[in-house]
Amino acid sequence: MLDRSTIIGFVSGFTLILLAIVLQGNLMIFASMSSFLIVAGGVLAATLVNYSYENIKYSFKVISKMMGAKSVDLRTDMELMRMFAKKVRTDGILTLDDEIGSIENDFLQNAIQLAVDGYNKESLGNILDDEIQSQKRQLSISVKVLDSMSEYAPAFGMIGTLIGMILMLQNIDDPKSLGAGLAVALITTLYGTILSNMILGPLAGKLEYLSKLDLNRKEMFRVGVLSMVEEENPRIMENKMLIYLEPKKRAEYKKYHEKLAYGTDRVDRLYQKWPTYQTEEWEKLNENLELETG
Amino acid sequence: MLDRSTIIGFVSGFTLILLAIVLQGNLMIFASMSSFLIVAGGVLAATLVNYSYENIKYSFKVISKMMGAKSVDLRTDMELMRMFAKKVRTDGILTLDDEIGSIENDFLQNAIQLAVDGYNKESLGNILDDEIQSQKRQLSISVKVLDSMSEYAPAFGMIGTLIGMILMLQNIDDPKSLGAGLAVALITTLYGTILSNMILGPLAGKLEYLSKLDLNRKEMFRVGVLSMVEEENPRIMENKMLIYLEPKKRAEYKKYHEKLAYGTDRVDRLYQKWPTYQTEEWEKLNENLELETG
Amino acid sequence: MLDRSTIIGFVSGFTLILLAIVLQGNLMIFASMSSFLIVAGGVLAATLVNYSYENIKYSFKVISKMMGAKSVDLRTDMELMRMFAKKVRTDGILTLDDEIGSIENDFLQNAIQLAVDGYNKESLGNILDDEIQSQKRQLSISVKVLDSMSEYAPAFGMIGTLIGMILMLQNIDDPKSLGAGLAVALITTLYGTILSNMILGPLAGKLEYLSKLDLNRKEMFRVGVLSMVEEENPRIMENKMLIYLEPKKRAEYKKYHEKLAYGTDRVDRLYQKWPTYQTEEWEKLNENLELETG
Amino acid sequence: MLDRSTIIGFVSGFTLILLAIVLQGNLMIFASMSSFLIVAGGVLAATLVNYSYENIKYSFKVISKMMGAKSVDLRTDMELMRMFAKKVRTDGILTLDDEIGSIENDFLQNAIQLAVDGYNKESLGNILDDEIQSQKRQLSISVKVLDSMSEYAPAFGMIGTLIGMILMLQNIDDPKSLGAGLAVALITTLYGTILSNMILGPLAGKLEYLSKLDLNRKEMFRVGVLSMVEEENPRIMENKMLIYLEPKKRAEYKKYHEKLAYGTDRVDRLYQKWPTYQTEEWEKLNENLELETG
Amino acid sequence: MLDRSTIIGFVSGFTLILLAIVLQGNLMIFASMSSFLIVAGGVLAATLVNYSYENIKYSFKVISKMMGAKSVDLRTDMELMRMFAKKVRTDGILTLDDEIGSIENDFLQNAIQLAVDGYNKESLGNILDDEIQSQKRQLSISVKVLDSMSEYAPAFGMIGTLIGMILMLQNIDDPKSLGAGLAVALITTLYGTILSNMILGPLAGKLEYLSKLDLNRKEMFRVGVLSMVEEENPRIMENKMLIYLEPKKRAEYKKYHEKLAYGTDRVDRLYQKWPTYQTEEWEKLNENLELETG
Repeated sequence: MLDRSTIIGFVSGFTLILLAIVLQGNLMIFASMSSFLIVAGGVLAATLVNYSYENIKYSFKVISKMMGAKSVDLRTDMELMRMFAKKVRTDGILTLDDEIGSIENDFLQNAIQLAVDGYNKESLGNILDDEIQSQKRQLSISVKVLDSMSEYAPAFGMIGTLIGMILMLQNIDDPKSLGAGLAVALITTLYGTILSNMILGPLAGKLEYLSKLDLNRKEMFRVGVLSMVEEENPRIMENKMLIYLEPKKRAEYKKYHEKLAYGTDRVDRLYQKWPTYQTEEWEKLNENLELETG
Repeated sequence: MLDRSTIIGFVSGFTLILLAIVLQGNLMIFASMSSFLIVAGGVLAATLVNYSYENIKYSFKVISKMMGAKSVDLRTDMELMRMFAKKVRTDGILTLDDEIGSIENDFLQNAIQLAVDGYNKESLGNILDDEIQSQKRQLSISVKVLDSMSEYAPAFGMIGTLIGMILMLQNIDDPKSLGAGLAVALITTLYGTILSNMILGPLAGKLEYLSKLDLNRKEMFRVGVLSMVEEENPRIMENKMLIYLEPKKRAEYKKYHEKLAYGTDRVDRLYQKWPTYQTEEWEKLNENLELETG
Repeated sequence: MLDRSTIIGFVSGFTLILLAIVLQGNLMIFASMSSFLIVAGGVLAATLVNYSYENIKYSFKVISKMMGAKSVDLRTDMELMRMFAKKVRTDGILTLDDEIGSIENDFLQNAIQLAVDGYNKESLGNILDDEIQSQKRQLSISVKVLDSMSEYAPAFGMIGTLIGMILMLQNIDDPKSLGAGLAVALITTLYGTILSNMILGPLAGKLEYLSKLDLNRKEMFRVGVLSMVEEENPRIMENKMLIYLEPKKRAEYKKYHEKLAYGTDRVDRLYQKWPTYQTEEWEKLNENLELETG
Repeated sequence: MLDRSTIIGFVSGFTLILLAIVLQGNLMIFASMSSFLIVAGGVLAATLVNYSYENIKYSFKVISKMMGAKSVDLRTDMELMRMFAKKVRTDGILTLDDEIGSIENDFLQNAIQLAVDGYNKESLGNILDDEIQSQKRQLSISVKVLDSMSEYAPAFGMIGTLIGMILMLQNIDDPKSLGAGLAVALITTLYGTILSNMILGPLAGKLEYLSKLDLNRKEMFRVGVLSMVEEENPRIMENKMLIYLEPKKRAEYKKYHEKLAYGTDRVDRLYQKWPTYQTEEWEKLNENLELETG
Repeated sequence: MLDRSTIIGFVSGFTLILLAIVLQGNLMIFASMSSFLIVAGGVLAATLVNYSYENIKYSFKVISKMMGAKSVDLRTDMELMRMFAKKVRTDGILTLDDEIGSIENDFLQNAIQLAVDGYNKESLGNILDDEIQSQKRQLSISVKVLDSMSEYAPAFGMIGTLIGMILMLQNIDDPKSLGAGLAVALITTLYGTILSNMILGPLAGKLEYLSKLDLNRKEMFRVGVLSMVEEENPRIMENKMLIYLEPKKRAEYKKYHEKLAYGTDRVDRLYQKWPTYQTEEWEKLNENLELETG
């Protein structure tokens, strides 16, 4: 369940490359297990020397996890946090104990668990901040790992081609075999270029992009949970959290809630459905809640 | 309605390239849909993986919008703001309500709308600053998107050429076909180099250049509108705004108004015509206003 | 006793390259002492001009030392320091005099030696900090040395190939010898590319990576020893040192010790065995200590 | 009237390139108007898209102006400012009114004009600082324009070569024509490399170098004129200005004036001749002044 | 009398390159005055345009001076300064007047001269700091000059090769002459690569490396001389200066002097011999002083 633009990018990119081949000749010429091994294997080997096995594994785990993550509509997160804050305001922080199991986001789940466990604002703030800082550090290593891999790929493509060319030039009999030999030698360069520019480089960029969004979301959750623990007015919490939204979405969210004004029954309705709504787009969430009234 | 130097650059650049071809041979040799698809499509695909569809769309929207924008003569903006400030000073901020519809610049229109709606200086300042900061962030992503595309382009040109060369080398019959095959293979490299150095790279530079100008202008409007809301003396507003002009234009503007000295009827004359004058060069604006007196 | 991922990386990388050769042709074609000499020797010569003999020697010494270092499980270090601190609390700093000889980490050994020698907190802190800063400086030079070598390698590969090509082109008799000559000439380029991308570049990265870990560990020891000298409560020392662990390991360590609660006999048991346990993984250490109770 | 080292560099560089050609063959082979057009025109076109016509024009204007500027011997400037300061001290700032017309440096001329016009220290300081800051900004854009051009040049050289090669490979009849075709195609690459490495790149560097010197000189003038306006002791002004000289020249200047000690007639003599001496080397200025005494 | 590692680097590097040639063919093929002229001359010409003749001359002067400088054993410097400080403490600063002529380091000689001339601490500190700052600025320009030269070298190698190839391709008669022509053309590329990677690049690195050491030493002298002028206790001066030594050497120095404890006759003995000892290694200095006692 990859990030949509990543899937579209990979599918369209490789379709184009395959089409370019099929329209001109035989696809099988380009399928070379040994070429793939020297490029992909060489990149992995150099990266193992450069970093450690754990770094590489973590990089790929984190990128697959991030791209598989649902909903990043921060306005939906805002709605849920607002609802939680209202509950906490009336019934105390312990009410949330029953809800923890249904929260999908690990960071938020953990944060609310700790809040329910009675941590005070300061130590809770430190723990959450520490988690965010540590994730930031680890993500920046992961981006560097992918960047290094993307730089090693063309080099190993060139190594494969050089080996092929040296062998081919050693025993020239007829110019025809020379052409075929060179063709085979060039396949590793092709693999290295594709690996670097179609896969590893763009993935490094994507990881950097997604991790910024994710860290922003966690910062928002942190601010919200700390506000709850202090039992601040939900409106204050809302204003503190809204800073993390981009202006356009923030404006829409504010406008919508200004129109609603009072309407505590909306919170009740949301409270019954939130576990299924938490990954919804915000517009859909509103639509559903309004339908229920009618 | 592109930025003039961009049009001249594109027209002259492509004319030169086409002439270079036509004078030496047949243009049709260079028109290859499949070569275009693998380069342009590959770049788009890699960029989709690297960023998201929204980023790419936004980048091209913003660059087309910025280059299509009229008038960036800040002295004309100064004149209008000065006129507004004088009106506000005598008749209060609500006078501007009728004028909002005629303002072409979205940022200024929105800022004055909020001022008329009664926002106080502090919250208005925050809203406008927030909009500027957020635009700065989004523009820097857009520049990065175009820069990445410009880096991917030669790589996909090379991928296309490698594919063509491998296929060609596989089945050599006569040296003549070999030459033709290599020629076709090199077309993608040509496309990639042109795409990167004639289109994407320069556009990334232009976007960065124009966005700096645009942000400077918005900062100037922000300072002006806040001064109006506080009903400061128009002279003070003028001095605060003048910092955003380059010294030469600032000096010209100051000199001109020192000569005018008193002359409130100039403001009245301008007030009647400003909607048609707001995108004029400043020199022309002055000329027109003087002609009316005569 | 190299760092594990480095060994695996080198073994797998070179196996892949050798396999790629052997499967296609004769390995002996690629073994060229003179090619190796011009590339490796040239890189060394240029690096000698660029830096000094001491810098190069130190770089390789430090990388071999760091990669040969055992245990970097900071939780095991925590356990030992905690045990020392408890001893110091009851019996005074001089108790540690007998233990110094068994400490494997040079920095910790030296720090405790100085503490036993009666240095006060301030001068001890300065000495240790000075050592850390100076190591940081020297390590950054070492990383730069390896980076420079990795940049010179492809250039000397190219120099060797150019020499070979010029000689070959001078006396062409039959095209066959031309091919063989070019093959020989290309071997230096292959060597340069492998040296840069499979050995020197990744080693520079690894050195940077390991030195960060090592400096973090020394900072942790410094904080711990200073706390001991002040005879602070071991719990306080523990909290100060825990900042240097990554959150996950820190949480595990904390949880484990919260469960243990009281249990001074664990410290006694550890005290008898610590010299053999100091390079153990933390989980194993705990296992062993528990086994002894049963 | 270019900067001397620039002329020597251009003359010797192009002489070497032309000699290399003439000694081996026919110069006319390398003269290709169409090759020149595609490289130089393409670079201009891409730069037009990237920046604006004004930026490019300004870059070349500023570089020709800076390189044509006479005298940058700051010690001569020191002498003149010292002389002015002494006059101002005795006869008041208005004395300088007659001298303004003879001052060659625009910045100094304008600064003294403003001082004579009665601007107070603060507003004069702001105006001059603003001019310096604005020039700094514009010069950094100009350097970027030249740097971009230097980066585009090899790319357009390659575009020209690719076009030539594709056309040539399309219709191979005899290998001889192939060689000649390739030769023609390579000329654009040669042009692009020369344009980038012999002209644009070095000019970008020179502009950066000269603009630093020029800004330093203006800062020195600014400090001097502000000191005059305040009618500070000329010795104080001298000390404030001397900071902008490099130590060696500063020492020479100081030593010389310590020897002179009293000697107001030197100032008088200089006052009669300064308009012709203002672009002189300092050593020559002193020589001339001494000759007059004898 | 170059820096040792620089000589070893140059000798071994060029020996390797020459051996690689001689073992395969005729060395004379590679000796081409015209190729050398176009590469070295072109680099010089471009650098003249980029910087100025003074910059280039200064770069080479400074690098030859620095590499020819004797002794950089800061511990020997420490001993001499300590001896001077003791003399100053007993006999006043004027005692040093006789010694100035024998001091080899220009900076120290000048600093003590100024101290003897009676400059107070503040102005002396400013003068010395100014000299250090100015040297720092000039050295950073010199490093940039060498870096630029190292970047221009391969470009001019390529220009020479392109000229050769174009001429050769124009008149192909037999394939044999084609090979020889290409061989000649490639020699400039070889020269450019060697010039950049074996000479200019490493020298730029060495200059940066040596200038850091030299500036550190001057800072140390500055601190020491200022302390003398204030007639501070020699022990305090020693501690202030020791910060500039690396920890290992500092420890050795300290240990040695702790052992000596009292022993003013050592200072007297050193005082009689210091002019011949000032460039000695510190270990040798100690040895010699001890021998004299026995």
